[in-house]
Amino acid sequence: MSKSLVWEDKQKGGLAGIDPKYTGALQSKEEIAEETEKLREEFHKLQEKLVAVKDKGIVFIFQGMDCSGKDGVIKHVFSGLNPQGISSYSFKAPTEEEKLHDYLWRAHNKVPALGYIATFNRSYYEDVLITRVHGIVSDKEARRRFKQINHFETYLMDNQVHVVKIFLHISNDFQLEKLRSRIEDPSKNWKFDASDLAERKHWKKYWAYYEEAFEKCSKASPWHIIPSDNRWYRNYAVLKIVVDSMRSLKLNDPEPNPELIKLLDEFKNTE
Amino acid sequence: MSKSLVWEDKQKGGLAGIDPKYTGALQSKEEIAEETEKLREEFHKLQEKLVAVKDKGIVFIFQGMDCSGKDGVIKHVFSGLNPQGISSYSFKAPTEEEKLHDYLWRAHNKVPALGYIATFNRSYYEDVLITRVHGIVSDKEARRRFKQINHFETYLMDNQVHVVKIFLHISNDFQLEKLRSRIEDPSKNWKFDASDLAERKHWKKYWAYYEEAFEKCSKASPWHIIPSDNRWYRNYAVLKIVVDSMRSLKLNDPEPNPELIKLLDEFKNTE
Repeated sequence: MSKSLVWEDKQKGGLAGIDPKYTGALQSKEEIAEETEKLREEFHKLQEKLVAVKDKGIVFIFQGMDCSGKDGVIKHVFSGLNPQGISSYSFKAPTEEEKLHDYLWRAHNKVPALGYIATFNRSYYEDVLITRVHGIVSDKEARRRFKQINHFETYLMDNQVHVVKIFLHISNDFQLEKLRSRIEDPSKNWKFDASDLAERKHWKKYWAYYEEAFEKCSKASPWHIIPSDNRWYRNYAVLKIVVDSMRSLKLNDPEPNPELIKLLDEFKNTE
Repeated sequence: MSKSLVWEDKQKGGLAGIDPKYTGALQSKEEIAEETEKLREEFHKLQEKLVAVKDKGIVFIFQGMDCSGKDGVIKHVFSGLNPQGISSYSFKAPTEEEKLHDYLWRAHNKVPALGYIATFNRSYYEDVLITRVHGIVSDKEARRRFKQINHFETYLMDNQVHVVKIFLHISNDFQLEKLRSRIEDPSKNWKFDASDLAERKHWKKYWAYYEEAFEKCSKASPWHIIPSDNRWYRNYAVLKIVVDSMRSLKLNDPEPNPELIKLLDEFKNTE
Protein backbone atom coordinates (compact mmCIF):
# COMPACT_ATOMS: atom_id res chain seq x y z
CA MET A 1 0.00 0.00 0.00
CA SER A 2 1.17 3.48 -0.81
CA LYS A 3 2.73 5.14 2.19
CA SER A 4 0.61 8.25 1.61
CA LEU A 5 -2.39 6.35 2.96
CA VAL A 6 -0.87 5.92 6.40
CA TRP A 7 -1.64 8.89 8.64
CA GLU A 8 1.56 10.82 9.13
CA ASP A 9 2.54 12.89 12.11
CA LYS A 10 1.18 16.39 11.34
CA GLN A 11 -0.47 15.13 8.15
CA LYS A 12 -0.31 17.92 5.58
CA GLY A 13 -3.74 19.35 4.89
CA GLY A 14 -5.49 16.97 7.27
CA LEU A 15 -8.38 14.85 5.98
CA ALA A 16 -9.28 17.61 3.51
CA GLY A 17 -5.88 17.01 1.90
CA ILE A 18 -6.72 13.38 1.06
CA ASP A 19 -9.01 12.84 -1.93
CA PRO A 20 -11.80 10.36 -1.07
CA LYS A 21 -12.05 9.57 -4.79
CA TYR A 22 -8.36 8.63 -5.05
CA THR A 23 -7.68 5.36 -6.87
CA GLY A 24 -3.97 5.76 -7.58
CA ALA A 25 -3.01 4.61 -11.07
CA LEU A 26 -6.02 2.30 -11.19
CA GLN A 27 -9.03 3.03 -13.37
CA SER A 28 -11.47 0.22 -12.73
CA LYS A 29 -12.39 -2.90 -10.84
CA GLU A 30 -11.40 -5.12 -13.76
CA GLU A 31 -7.73 -4.22 -13.47
CA ILE A 32 -7.51 -5.65 -9.95
CA ALA A 33 -9.71 -8.74 -10.37
CA GLU A 34 -6.82 -11.15 -10.72
CA GLU A 35 -4.74 -9.67 -7.92
CA THR A 36 -7.79 -9.63 -5.65
CA GLU A 37 -8.29 -13.33 -6.20
CA LYS A 38 -4.66 -14.04 -5.34
CA LEU A 39 -4.79 -11.87 -2.21
CA ARG A 40 -7.91 -13.66 -1.03
CA GLU A 41 -6.28 -17.03 -1.43
CA GLU A 42 -3.22 -15.89 0.46
CA PHE A 43 -5.42 -14.41 3.21
CA HIS A 44 -7.28 -17.69 3.66
CA LYS A 45 -4.04 -19.66 3.82
CA LEU A 46 -2.61 -17.27 6.38
CA GLN A 47 -5.74 -17.63 8.50
CA GLU A 48 -5.34 -21.42 8.44
CA LYS A 49 -1.87 -21.03 9.92
CA LEU A 50 -3.16 -18.62 12.57
CA VAL A 51 -5.92 -21.05 13.59
CA ALA A 52 -3.50 -23.99 13.67
CA VAL A 53 -0.64 -22.44 15.64
CA LYS A 54 -2.69 -20.22 17.99
CA ASP A 55 0.19 -18.04 19.14
CA LYS A 56 -1.13 -14.70 17.88
CA GLY A 57 -4.35 -12.75 17.53
CA ILE A 58 -5.22 -9.80 15.31
CA VAL A 59 -7.96 -7.20 15.46
CA PHE A 60 -9.01 -4.95 12.59
CA ILE A 61 -10.72 -1.78 13.78
CA PHE A 62 -12.97 0.03 11.30
CA GLN A 63 -14.00 3.62 11.81
CA GLY A 64 -15.64 6.08 9.43
CA MET A 65 -18.52 8.51 9.04
CA ASP A 66 -22.04 7.11 8.55
CA CYS A 67 -22.41 5.53 5.09
CA SER A 68 -18.66 5.06 4.71
CA GLY A 69 -19.20 1.33 4.19
CA LYS A 70 -17.86 -0.32 7.33
CA ASP A 71 -20.42 -3.14 7.14
CA GLY A 72 -19.85 -3.56 3.44
CA VAL A 73 -16.09 -3.78 3.54
CA ILE A 74 -16.09 -6.24 6.46
CA LYS A 75 -18.56 -8.43 4.58
CA HIS A 76 -16.50 -8.20 1.39
CA VAL A 77 -13.02 -8.78 2.79
CA PHE A 78 -13.67 -11.20 5.65
CA SER A 79 -16.22 -13.51 4.00
CA GLY A 80 -15.11 -17.04 3.24
CA LEU A 81 -12.81 -17.49 6.24
CA ASN A 82 -12.89 -20.41 8.66
CA PRO A 83 -15.62 -19.30 11.10
CA GLN A 84 -13.78 -21.05 13.95
CA GLY A 85 -11.12 -18.37 13.73
CA ILE A 86 -13.03 -15.13 13.25
CA SER A 87 -15.22 -13.05 15.52
CA SER A 88 -16.98 -9.84 14.42
CA TYR A 89 -18.38 -7.18 16.71
CA SER A 90 -20.36 -4.09 16.02
CA PHE A 91 -20.06 -1.54 18.80
CA LYS A 92 -23.41 0.24 18.98
CA ALA A 93 -24.54 2.79 21.54
CA PRO A 94 -23.58 1.25 24.89
CA THR A 95 -26.16 -0.86 26.73
CA GLU A 96 -27.23 -0.03 30.29
CA GLU A 97 -24.74 -2.60 31.59
CA GLU A 98 -21.92 -1.25 29.41
CA LYS A 99 -22.63 2.31 30.56
CA LEU A 100 -21.88 1.21 34.13
CA HIS A 101 -18.38 0.14 33.11
CA ASP A 102 -15.19 1.90 32.03
CA TYR A 103 -15.24 2.64 28.29
CA LEU A 104 -12.57 0.06 27.36
CA TRP A 105 -14.37 -2.72 29.22
CA ARG A 106 -16.57 -3.98 26.40
CA ALA A 107 -13.80 -3.73 23.81
CA HIS A 108 -11.21 -5.54 25.93
CA ASN A 109 -13.74 -8.31 26.48
CA LYS A 110 -14.03 -8.74 22.70
CA VAL A 111 -10.29 -8.69 21.99
CA PRO A 112 -9.51 -11.83 19.97
CA ALA A 113 -8.16 -15.00 21.54
CA LEU A 114 -4.88 -16.33 20.16
CA GLY A 115 -5.65 -17.99 16.83
CA TYR A 116 -8.45 -15.54 16.08
CA ILE A 117 -9.05 -12.63 13.75
CA ALA A 118 -11.52 -10.07 15.10
CA THR A 119 -13.22 -7.25 13.24
CA PHE A 120 -14.50 -4.26 15.19
CA ASN A 121 -17.17 -2.23 13.43
CA ARG A 122 -16.63 1.00 15.38
CA SER A 123 -14.72 0.75 18.67
CA TYR A 124 -13.54 2.65 21.74
CA TYR A 125 -12.61 5.45 19.35
CA GLU A 126 -16.29 6.41 19.49
CA ASP A 127 -15.52 7.38 23.10
CA VAL A 128 -13.33 10.23 21.84
CA LEU A 129 -15.55 11.06 18.83
CA ILE A 130 -19.34 11.04 19.07
CA THR A 131 -19.24 11.62 22.83
CA ARG A 132 -16.92 14.57 22.27
CA VAL A 133 -19.00 16.03 19.44
CA HIS A 134 -21.98 16.00 21.81
CA GLY A 135 -20.07 17.47 24.75
CA ILE A 136 -20.38 14.35 26.93
CA VAL A 137 -16.60 14.03 26.96
CA SER A 138 -14.56 17.21 27.48
CA ASP A 139 -11.44 18.07 25.49
CA LYS A 140 -9.40 17.44 28.62
CA GLU A 141 -10.95 14.02 29.14
CA ALA A 142 -10.51 13.18 25.43
CA ARG A 143 -6.79 13.91 25.71
CA ARG A 144 -6.51 11.71 28.79
CA ARG A 145 -8.26 8.98 26.84
CA PHE A 146 -5.79 9.27 23.94
CA LYS A 147 -3.05 8.31 26.40
CA GLN A 148 -5.12 5.49 27.85
CA ILE A 149 -5.84 4.18 24.36
CA ASN A 150 -2.12 4.28 23.50
CA HIS A 151 -1.35 2.31 26.66
CA PHE A 152 -4.10 -0.19 25.88
CA GLU A 153 -2.99 -0.75 22.29
CA THR A 154 0.68 -0.99 23.28
CA TYR A 155 -0.31 -3.55 25.89
CA LEU A 156 -2.21 -5.62 23.33
CA MET A 157 0.65 -5.48 20.81
CA ASP A 158 3.08 -6.56 23.56
CA ASN A 159 0.80 -9.47 24.37
CA GLN A 160 0.60 -11.01 20.88
CA VAL A 161 -2.59 -9.24 19.82
CA HIS A 162 -1.86 -7.17 16.74
CA VAL A 163 -4.01 -4.03 16.31
CA VAL A 164 -4.76 -2.67 12.81
CA LYS A 165 -6.74 0.56 12.44
CA ILE A 166 -8.58 1.52 9.30
CA PHE A 167 -10.48 4.74 8.54
CA LEU A 168 -12.87 4.70 5.60
CA HIS A 169 -12.61 8.19 4.15
CA ILE A 170 -15.62 9.51 2.23
CA SER A 171 -16.66 12.94 0.99
CA ASN A 172 -19.58 14.89 2.33
CA ASP A 173 -21.29 14.65 -1.08
CA PHE A 174 -20.90 10.90 -1.15
CA GLN A 175 -22.63 10.60 2.20
CA LEU A 176 -25.46 12.88 1.09
CA GLU A 177 -26.04 10.75 -1.97
CA LYS A 178 -26.07 7.55 0.08
CA LEU A 179 -28.53 8.98 2.60
CA ARG A 180 -30.76 10.15 -0.25
CA SER A 181 -30.82 6.67 -1.73
CA ARG A 182 -31.76 5.24 1.67
CA ILE A 183 -34.77 7.55 1.67
CA GLU A 184 -35.75 7.17 -1.97
CA ASP A 185 -35.00 3.49 -2.66
CA PRO A 186 -37.60 1.29 -0.86
CA SER A 187 -35.13 -1.62 -0.73
CA LYS A 188 -32.74 0.55 1.28
CA ASN A 189 -35.31 2.18 3.58
CA TRP A 190 -34.42 -0.19 6.44
CA LYS A 191 -30.95 1.29 6.61
CA PHE A 192 -32.23 4.83 7.13
CA ASP A 193 -31.80 6.36 10.54
CA ALA A 194 -32.95 9.95 11.07
CA SER A 195 -30.07 10.53 13.49
CA ASP A 196 -27.62 10.07 10.59
CA LEU A 197 -29.05 13.20 8.99
CA ALA A 198 -28.77 15.09 12.28
CA GLU A 199 -25.12 14.04 12.67
CA ARG A 200 -24.30 15.51 9.24
CA LYS A 201 -24.32 19.02 10.61
CA HIS A 202 -21.39 18.07 12.86
CA TRP A 203 -19.25 16.93 9.91
CA LYS A 204 -16.48 19.47 10.50
CA LYS A 205 -16.24 18.66 14.18
CA TYR A 206 -16.06 14.95 13.42
CA TRP A 207 -13.22 15.49 11.00
CA ALA A 208 -11.31 17.68 13.45
CA TYR A 209 -11.71 15.11 16.25
CA TYR A 210 -10.78 12.26 13.94
CA GLU A 211 -7.65 14.13 12.90
CA GLU A 212 -6.69 14.64 16.53
CA ALA A 213 -7.29 10.96 17.29
CA PHE A 214 -5.13 9.92 14.32
CA GLU A 215 -2.36 12.25 15.43
CA LYS A 216 -2.44 11.26 19.09
CA CYS A 217 -3.16 7.55 18.69
CA SER A 218 -0.68 6.32 16.11
CA LYS A 219 1.93 5.36 18.66
CA ALA A 220 1.26 1.66 19.07
CA SER A 221 -0.14 1.11 15.60
CA PRO A 222 -0.72 3.55 12.73
CA TRP A 223 -4.01 4.66 11.19
CA HIS A 224 -4.68 3.68 7.59
CA ILE A 225 -6.78 6.21 5.67
CA ILE A 226 -8.71 4.55 2.86
CA PRO A 227 -10.22 6.71 0.12
CA SER A 228 -13.69 5.17 0.02
CA ASP A 229 -15.88 7.05 -2.44
CA ASN A 230 -15.18 4.22 -4.91
CA ARG A 231 -16.35 1.00 -3.40
CA TRP A 232 -14.12 -1.23 -5.53
CA TYR A 233 -11.03 0.75 -4.63
CA ARG A 234 -11.99 0.76 -0.93
CA ASN A 235 -12.40 -3.03 -0.90
CA TYR A 236 -9.15 -3.55 -2.73
CA ALA A 237 -7.14 -1.18 -0.52
CA VAL A 238 -8.51 -2.75 2.67
CA LEU A 239 -7.82 -6.28 1.43
CA LYS A 240 -4.23 -5.27 0.72
CA ILE A 241 -3.76 -3.86 4.22
CA VAL A 242 -5.36 -6.93 5.75
CA VAL A 243 -3.08 -9.31 3.87
CA ASP A 244 -0.02 -7.14 4.59
CA SER A 245 -0.91 -7.19 8.28
CA MET A 246 -1.34 -10.97 8.26
CA ARG A 247 2.05 -11.32 6.55
CA SER A 248 3.65 -9.05 9.15
CA LEU A 249 2.64 -11.54 11.87
CA LYS A 250 5.29 -13.87 10.40
CA LEU A 251 3.16 -16.88 11.25
CA ASN A 252 4.89 -20.17 11.81
CA ASP A 253 3.83 -23.35 10.13
CA PRO A 254 2.16 -25.67 12.58
CA GLU A 255 4.61 -28.22 13.92
CA PRO A 256 3.71 -31.88 13.63
CA ASN A 257 2.72 -33.54 16.87
CA PRO A 258 5.83 -35.37 18.25
CA GLU A 259 3.62 -38.31 19.20
CA LEU A 260 2.52 -38.60 15.59
CA ILE A 261 6.14 -38.80 14.41
CA LYS A 262 6.82 -41.55 16.95
CA LEU A 263 3.74 -43.44 15.83
CA LEU A 264 4.74 -43.11 12.19
CA ASP A 265 8.18 -44.54 12.99
CA GLU A 266 6.66 -47.49 14.80
CA PHE A 267 4.26 -47.97 11.93
CA LYS A 268 7.16 -48.10 9.47
CA ASN A 269 8.97 -50.69 11.57
CA THR A 270 5.97 -53.01 11.49
CA GLU A 271 5.85 -52.93 7.72
CA MET B 1 -4.18 2.59 59.80
CA SER B 2 -0.59 3.10 60.82
CA LYS B 3 1.42 4.48 57.94
CA SER B 4 4.07 1.83 58.52
CA LEU B 5 1.71 -0.75 57.01
CA VAL B 6 1.67 0.95 53.61
CA TRP B 7 4.53 -0.28 51.43
CA GLU B 8 7.03 2.54 51.14
CA ASP B 9 9.35 3.23 48.27
CA LYS B 10 12.51 1.22 49.10
CA GLN B 11 10.87 -0.29 52.18
CA LYS B 12 13.53 -0.72 54.85
CA GLY B 13 14.28 -4.38 55.44
CA GLY B 14 11.69 -5.59 52.93
CA LEU B 15 9.05 -8.08 54.04
CA ALA B 16 11.50 -9.54 56.55
CA GLY B 17 11.44 -6.15 58.27
CA ILE B 18 7.71 -6.34 58.98
CA ASP B 19 6.66 -8.58 61.85
CA PRO B 20 3.75 -10.85 60.79
CA LYS B 21 2.77 -11.06 64.47
CA TYR B 22 2.50 -7.27 64.84
CA THR B 23 -0.66 -6.07 66.58
CA GLY B 24 0.36 -2.52 67.44
CA ALA B 25 -0.70 -1.47 70.93
CA LEU B 26 -3.53 -4.02 70.88
CA GLN B 27 -3.43 -7.16 72.98
CA SER B 28 -6.61 -9.02 72.16
CA LYS B 29 -9.77 -9.30 70.11
CA GLU B 30 -11.89 -8.01 72.99
CA GLU B 31 -10.34 -4.55 72.84
CA ILE B 32 -11.55 -3.95 69.31
CA ALA B 33 -15.01 -5.59 69.54
CA GLU B 34 -16.88 -2.32 69.91
CA GLU B 35 -14.94 -0.45 67.24
CA THR B 36 -15.35 -3.40 64.86
CA GLU B 37 -19.11 -3.24 65.28
CA LYS B 38 -19.11 0.48 64.52
CA LEU B 39 -16.88 0.06 61.48
CA ARG B 40 -19.16 -2.65 60.12
CA GLU B 41 -22.20 -0.43 60.47
CA GLU B 42 -20.44 2.41 58.74
CA PHE B 43 -19.28 0.08 55.95
CA HIS B 44 -22.82 -1.14 55.33
CA LYS B 45 -24.17 2.41 55.21
CA LEU B 46 -21.45 3.46 52.79
CA GLN B 47 -22.29 0.51 50.55
CA GLU B 48 -25.94 1.58 50.49
CA LYS B 49 -24.87 4.97 49.17
CA LEU B 50 -22.63 3.37 46.55
CA VAL B 51 -25.46 1.12 45.35
CA ALA B 52 -27.93 4.03 45.26
CA VAL B 53 -25.81 6.64 43.46
CA LYS B 54 -23.91 4.31 41.10
CA ASP B 55 -21.19 6.77 40.14
CA LYS B 56 -18.21 4.84 41.45
CA GLY B 57 -16.90 1.30 41.75
CA ILE B 58 -14.24 -0.16 44.03
CA VAL B 59 -12.17 -3.32 43.86
CA PHE B 60 -10.27 -4.87 46.75
CA ILE B 61 -7.40 -7.08 45.61
CA PHE B 62 -6.14 -9.71 48.05
CA GLN B 63 -2.77 -11.37 47.64
CA GLY B 64 -0.76 -13.49 50.01
CA MET B 65 1.09 -16.78 50.38
CA ASP B 66 -0.91 -20.00 50.66
CA CYS B 67 -2.67 -20.20 54.05
CA SER B 68 -2.48 -16.43 54.58
CA GLY B 69 -6.25 -16.28 54.98
CA LYS B 70 -7.52 -14.58 51.83
CA ASP B 71 -10.76 -16.57 51.82
CA GLY B 72 -11.22 -16.07 55.53
CA VAL B 73 -10.76 -12.32 55.57
CA ILE B 74 -13.05 -11.79 52.55
CA LYS B 75 -15.72 -13.87 54.28
CA HIS B 76 -15.25 -12.01 57.56
CA VAL B 77 -15.13 -8.43 56.28
CA PHE B 78 -17.53 -8.53 53.30
CA SER B 79 -20.31 -10.67 54.77
CA GLY B 80 -23.60 -8.95 55.47
CA LEU B 81 -23.52 -6.52 52.53
CA ASN B 82 -26.30 -6.00 50.01
CA PRO B 83 -25.61 -8.81 47.50
CA GLN B 84 -26.87 -6.57 44.68
CA GLY B 85 -23.78 -4.45 45.10
CA ILE B 86 -20.96 -6.94 45.61
CA SER B 87 -19.23 -9.41 43.33
CA SER B 88 -16.45 -11.75 44.45
CA TYR B 89 -13.98 -13.53 42.20
CA SER B 90 -11.32 -16.07 42.91
CA PHE B 91 -8.65 -16.14 40.23
CA LYS B 92 -7.50 -19.75 39.98
CA ALA B 93 -5.10 -21.24 37.45
CA PRO B 94 -6.31 -19.89 34.08
CA THR B 95 -8.78 -21.99 32.08
CA GLU B 96 -8.00 -23.07 28.51
CA GLU B 97 -10.03 -20.10 27.23
CA GLU B 98 -8.28 -17.65 29.55
CA LYS B 99 -4.87 -18.96 28.50
CA LEU B 100 -5.67 -17.90 24.93
CA HIS B 101 -6.13 -14.29 26.06
CA ASP B 102 -3.85 -11.51 27.32
CA TYR B 103 -3.29 -11.83 31.07
CA LEU B 104 -5.37 -8.77 32.03
CA TRP B 105 -8.37 -9.96 30.01
CA ARG B 106 -10.12 -12.01 32.69
CA ALA B 107 -9.46 -9.42 35.39
CA HIS B 108 -10.71 -6.47 33.32
CA ASN B 109 -13.86 -8.44 32.57
CA LYS B 110 -14.50 -8.75 36.33
CA VAL B 111 -13.78 -5.12 37.18
CA PRO B 112 -16.81 -3.86 39.13
CA ALA B 113 -19.63 -1.90 37.51
CA LEU B 114 -20.39 1.51 38.98
CA GLY B 115 -22.31 0.95 42.20
CA TYR B 116 -20.42 -2.26 42.93
CA ILE B 117 -17.76 -3.46 45.34
CA ALA B 118 -15.65 -6.31 43.98
CA THR B 119 -13.26 -8.55 45.86
CA PHE B 120 -10.47 -10.30 43.96
CA ASN B 121 -9.03 -13.36 45.69
CA ARG B 122 -5.68 -13.33 43.87
CA SER B 123 -5.45 -11.31 40.64
CA TYR B 124 -3.24 -10.40 37.67
CA TYR B 125 -0.41 -10.08 40.21
CA GLU B 126 -0.14 -13.86 39.94
CA ASP B 127 1.10 -13.15 36.40
CA VAL B 128 4.25 -11.57 37.84
CA LEU B 129 4.54 -14.00 40.79
CA ILE B 130 3.84 -17.72 40.41
CA THR B 131 4.59 -17.60 36.67
CA ARG B 132 7.88 -15.88 37.42
CA VAL B 133 8.82 -18.29 40.21
CA HIS B 134 8.35 -21.14 37.74
CA GLY B 135 10.25 -19.43 34.92
CA ILE B 136 7.24 -19.07 32.62
CA VAL B 137 7.59 -15.29 32.74
CA SER B 138 11.11 -13.87 32.41
CA ASP B 139 12.44 -11.01 34.54
CA LYS B 140 12.32 -8.79 31.48
CA GLU B 141 8.71 -9.67 30.78
CA ALA B 142 7.80 -9.21 34.46
CA ARG B 143 9.20 -5.68 34.36
CA ARG B 144 7.21 -4.89 31.24
CA ARG B 145 4.13 -6.19 33.02
CA PHE B 146 4.75 -3.91 36.02
CA LYS B 147 4.40 -0.96 33.64
CA GLN B 148 1.32 -2.44 32.02
CA ILE B 149 -0.24 -3.02 35.43
CA ASN B 150 0.50 0.58 36.44
CA HIS B 151 -1.18 1.81 33.26
CA PHE B 152 -4.15 -0.46 33.85
CA GLU B 153 -4.66 0.61 37.45
CA THR B 154 -4.17 4.29 36.61
CA TYR B 155 -6.77 3.88 33.87
CA LEU B 156 -9.26 2.31 36.28
CA MET B 157 -8.71 5.01 38.92
CA ASP B 158 -9.22 7.69 36.23
CA ASN B 159 -12.45 5.99 35.23
CA GLN B 160 -14.14 5.95 38.64
CA VAL B 161 -13.03 2.47 39.64
CA HIS B 162 -10.99 2.69 42.82
CA VAL B 163 -8.30 0.00 43.27
CA VAL B 164 -7.25 -1.10 46.78
CA LYS B 165 -4.44 -3.63 47.18
CA ILE B 166 -3.95 -5.74 50.28
CA PHE B 167 -1.17 -8.22 51.05
CA LEU B 168 -1.75 -10.66 53.90
CA HIS B 169 1.67 -11.07 55.48
CA ILE B 170 2.35 -14.36 57.32
CA SER B 171 5.48 -16.04 58.62
CA ASN B 172 6.93 -19.23 57.24
CA ASP B 173 6.25 -20.96 60.59
CA PHE B 174 2.63 -19.89 60.54
CA GLN B 175 2.15 -21.44 57.11
CA LEU B 176 3.83 -24.67 58.17
CA GLU B 177 1.52 -24.96 61.15
CA LYS B 178 -1.53 -24.34 58.98
CA LEU B 179 -0.46 -26.94 56.44
CA ARG B 180 0.18 -29.43 59.23
CA SER B 181 -3.31 -28.92 60.60
CA ARG B 182 -4.76 -29.47 57.12
CA ILE B 183 -3.02 -32.84 57.08
CA GLU B 184 -3.71 -33.86 60.68
CA ASP B 185 -7.21 -32.49 61.26
CA PRO B 186 -9.75 -34.58 59.29
CA SER B 187 -12.19 -31.64 59.16
CA LYS B 188 -9.54 -29.60 57.29
CA ASN B 189 -8.32 -32.34 54.98
CA TRP B 190 -10.38 -30.94 52.07
CA LYS B 191 -8.27 -27.78 52.10
CA PHE B 192 -5.02 -29.68 51.65
CA ASP B 193 -3.32 -29.42 48.28
CA ALA B 194 0.04 -31.16 47.82
CA SER B 195 1.22 -28.36 45.54
CA ASP B 196 1.08 -25.97 48.51
CA LEU B 197 3.83 -28.00 50.15
CA ALA B 198 5.87 -27.94 46.93
CA GLU B 199 5.51 -24.16 46.65
CA ARG B 200 6.96 -23.74 50.17
CA LYS B 201 10.47 -24.35 48.91
CA HIS B 202 10.14 -21.21 46.75
CA TRP B 203 9.29 -19.03 49.75
CA LYS B 204 12.33 -16.73 49.35
CA LYS B 205 11.70 -16.22 45.64
CA TYR B 206 8.07 -15.40 46.30
CA TRP B 207 9.02 -12.78 48.86
CA ALA B 208 11.61 -11.23 46.55
CA TYR B 209 9.13 -11.05 43.66
CA TYR B 210 6.38 -9.71 45.91
CA GLU B 211 8.76 -7.01 47.13
CA GLU B 212 9.57 -6.02 43.57
CA ALA B 213 5.88 -5.92 42.65
CA PHE B 214 5.13 -3.70 45.68
CA GLU B 215 7.96 -1.37 44.75
CA LYS B 216 7.13 -1.15 41.06
CA CYS B 217 3.33 -1.19 41.31
CA SER B 218 2.48 1.37 43.94
CA LYS B 219 2.08 4.22 41.48
CA ALA B 220 -1.66 4.23 40.92
CA SER B 221 -2.59 2.85 44.31
CA PRO B 222 -0.41 1.73 47.23
CA TRP B 223 0.03 -1.76 48.67
CA HIS B 224 -1.19 -2.36 52.21
CA ILE B 225 0.84 -4.94 54.13
CA ILE B 226 -1.26 -6.63 56.81
CA PRO B 227 0.50 -8.60 59.55
CA SER B 228 -1.66 -11.73 59.48
CA ASP B 229 -0.30 -14.30 61.90
CA ASN B 230 -3.05 -13.17 64.30
CA ARG B 231 -6.38 -13.68 62.63
CA TRP B 232 -8.24 -11.18 64.80
CA TYR B 233 -5.72 -8.44 64.05
CA ARG B 234 -5.71 -9.26 60.33
CA ASN B 235 -9.52 -8.99 60.15
CA TYR B 236 -9.52 -5.75 62.09
CA ALA B 237 -6.73 -4.14 60.04
CA VAL B 238 -8.40 -5.10 56.75
CA LEU B 239 -11.79 -3.82 57.90
CA LYS B 240 -10.17 -0.49 58.78
CA ILE B 241 -8.58 -0.19 55.34
CA VAL B 242 -11.82 -1.15 53.65
CA VAL B 243 -13.82 1.47 55.56
CA ASP B 244 -11.11 4.11 55.02
CA SER B 245 -11.18 3.37 51.29
CA MET B 246 -14.96 3.63 51.18
CA ARG B 247 -14.76 6.96 53.00
CA SER B 248 -12.15 8.21 50.55
CA LEU B 249 -14.65 7.76 47.69
CA LYS B 250 -16.53 10.75 49.19
CA LEU B 251 -19.82 9.23 48.17
CA ASN B 252 -22.74 11.55 47.58
CA ASP B 253 -26.14 11.02 49.12
CA PRO B 254 -28.59 9.82 46.51
CA GLU B 255 -30.63 12.74 45.18
CA PRO B 256 -34.39 12.46 45.29
CA ASN B 257 -36.04 11.84 41.94
CA PRO B 258 -37.31 15.22 40.63
CA GLU B 259 -40.53 13.54 39.50
CA LEU B 260 -41.13 12.38 43.04
CA ILE B 261 -40.82 15.93 44.34
CA LYS B 262 -43.34 17.10 41.75
CA LEU B 263 -45.72 14.29 42.66
CA LEU B 264 -45.37 15.09 46.36
CA ASP B 265 -46.24 18.73 45.67
CA GLU B 266 -49.31 17.69 43.69
CA PHE B 267 -50.25 15.28 46.45
CA LYS B 268 -50.04 18.06 49.04
CA ASN B 269 -52.28 20.31 46.94
CA THR B 270 -55.00 17.68 46.80
CA GLU B 271 -55.10 17.37 50.57
